[in-house]
Amino acid sequence: MPEAIAGSPTCPVPQFSYEQVVLGHGSGGRLTHNLIERLFLPAFANATLERLEDQAIVRLDGHAIDSGVGRIAFTTDAFVVRPLFFPGGDIGRLAVHGTVNDLAVGGAIPQFISAAFILEEGLAIDDLRRIVESMRIACRESGVQLVTGDTKVVERGKADQVFITTSGIGSVPAGRSLSIANARPGDRVIVSGTIGDHGIAIMSVREGLEFDTVLESDTASLVDLVRVMLDACAAIRCLRDPTRGGVAGTLNELAAASDVAVRLDETSLPIRPAVKAACELLGLDPLHVANEGKLVAVVPPEDAQRLLAVMRQHPQGREAAIIGTIEREPRKLVTMKSWIGGERVVAMLSGEMLPRIC
Amino acid sequence: MPEAIAGSPTCPVPQFSYEQVVLGHGSGGRLTHNLIERLFLPAFANATLERLEDQAIVRLDGHAIDSGVGRIAFTTDAFVVRPLFFPGGDIGRLAVHGTVNDLAVGGAIPQFISAAFILEEGLAIDDLRRIVESMRIACRESGVQLVTGDTKVVERGKADQVFITTSGIGSVPAGRSLSIANARPGDRVIVSGTIGDHGIAIMSVREGLEFDTVLESDTASLVDLVRVMLDACAAIRCLRDPTRGGVAGTLNELAAASDVAVRLDETSLPIRPAVKAACELLGLDPLHVANEGKLVAVVPPEDAQRLLAVMRQHPQGREAAIIGTIEREPRKLVTMKSWIGGERVVAMLSGEMLPRIC
Repeated sequence: MPEAIAGSPTCPVPQFSYEQVVLGHGSGGRLTHNLIERLFLPAFANATLERLEDQAIVRLDGHAIDSGVGRIAFTTDAFVVRPLFFPGGDIGRLAVHGTVNDLAVGGAIPQFISAAFILEEGLAIDDLRRIVESMRIACRESGVQLVTGDTKVVERGKADQVFITTSGIGSVPAGRSLSIANARPGDRVIVSGTIGDHGIAIMSVREGLEFDTVLESDTASLVDLVRVMLDACAAIRCLRDPTRGGVAGTLNELAAASDVAVRLDETSLPIRPAVKAACELLGLDPLHVANEGKLVAVVPPEDAQRLLAVMRQHPQGREAAIIGTIEREPRKLVTMKSWIGGERVVAMLSGEMLPRIC
Repeated sequence: MPEAIAGSPTCPVPQFSYEQVVLGHGSGGRLTHNLIERLFLPAFANATLERLEDQAIVRLDGHAIDSGVGRIAFTTDAFVVRPLFFPGGDIGRLAVHGTVNDLAVGGAIPQFISAAFILEEGLAIDDLRRIVESMRIACRESGVQLVTGDTKVVERGKADQVFITTSGIGSVPAGRSLSIANARPGDRVIVSGTIGDHGIAIMSVREGLEFDTVLESDTASLVDLVRVMLDACAAIRCLRDPTRGGVAGTLNELAAASDVAVRLDETSLPIRPAVKAACELLGLDPLHVANEGKLVAVVPPEDAQRLLAVMRQHPQGREAAIIGTIEREPRKLVTMKSWIGGERVVAMLSGEMLPRIC
């Protein structure tokens, strides 16, 4: 079965007699097995998953294990985005990218992921199939195997269609140590591309906003970009993907953890005009808006221009820009020089402006 | 902070100004940080979690890595049990035990877990605190550290109080290979104690059934029992924890994967009288009812009695019993000789009798 299916462009599913999820699909009995065998296994075809044990037993490749150091990166994320399908992606794509990106920005080589589905009774099987197909493609793009999973079903009205929690593991090459606590005065802050695209794409759909251009989520795997960056510049202090809470959230965490100031320059922020317009319309600060395919890097000043050039060669980094510097004071604060020359504090998001963005 | 708190019997939480979960607790901004710093960090105090990176970087101990083999067990489970609190446990305890048990029955030494919370707006913070405290204790009992997590909040009516997805990793000692595909004719099937306790405890609460004795969930860590069993008997073919789908589900999977028959003897099944009575009342087969602190072992016949004696010495295995044998035919079927001497097929659960049991 896996041979024929793994290479095909879409995911043909043997006859599956349900059109909607029923409670029995979460029973652990026959219907759960049907769902696994007819929907999940064909999509994620790999020998580990097919063993159908309660746990995946895997080997991590790479320097970490070979050198006996054995450092492993481990992460988890729950995805509750609404709507499930949006311009540029869907919850499945997001769930794979979110987890592999969290591994990659830790300097790890993502290798295996798990997926736990919480399904609402009545979910269209076709929607689940589309989501699983997106996950299959996202796994392939990211170079990871989905090796273990779980499915639960709750009664109608007790969840919202589907929630997905992905976890991931990867090996960390010896000597690699990226951390939000590593930033030092003088370092430069680089962002890998335009900010706010994901959050605004979701909000536009929800609010029914229309623009001349379709606003698309930037959901993407950062695995390859990170690999290229670390190959080019071993001195990178820190990488982070500014998802929920946006660039402002990431930089505030960094300022606090490194006990430094972050000073941004508004004119250098890469923002699509349509995203800027939507933010003004919705009263949002683009620095607070979620990104799902961007990263923030902090690098020593002498490496910044060279790294930037390398990033701009990569499809995921074409619009990379240096957006600020690390300074000594005012400690633990992020500030921004505005385009008219004033300076303001960029606080962490308070309250919630964009619920269920990821 | 962690020093003082880690050793204390309960989990004192600094002033936390909310009594209920609000959407902002899932924003990735200030409120999310409050929740993490005041509720999650004090409970799970460990250096990896406190780094607050997007991923945990850990080292696995043990033979696996030392010998350069580097086999890792990886598992995930979503928990949606209703009600959240039940006799013998709660969703937090269940979420930790479920994941460490899945690692343990794979022959792994569980070491690290993650937790992703999906919270419904309006959840009482006190309920969340109780759940987290249970998880803290369960982690300690199981010898694992919770090193990474995620929190999402959805609007009122879009989830049911709290769902928790835990994932876990552990190292697999060299040479260890347990699998449901390993059973051979002649092997004995052992269960570690009374069956059906968890499912019936949950159903009794939901249905308002009253018995002379309180029916308690058996939710427990199997980590130490498994360690003792594998130390005593390296020839164990397979271990499984018969959760959703019950012992019948586990044995049907085993019969299919090993291409053998499983023949049970009804008179040997350890079942509490109250559980038996409740099953009759509710029209349930105890073999289909979920267990959360029991395991099924398949062992070569010459080791069965010795292993049984070892198990009975252990607090988690005092009521262990040999409940059946592996035979050649009828392949892929589980049958049971009833107490009156007849023989019936024990099928996998069809449909769903016990929704949201875990």
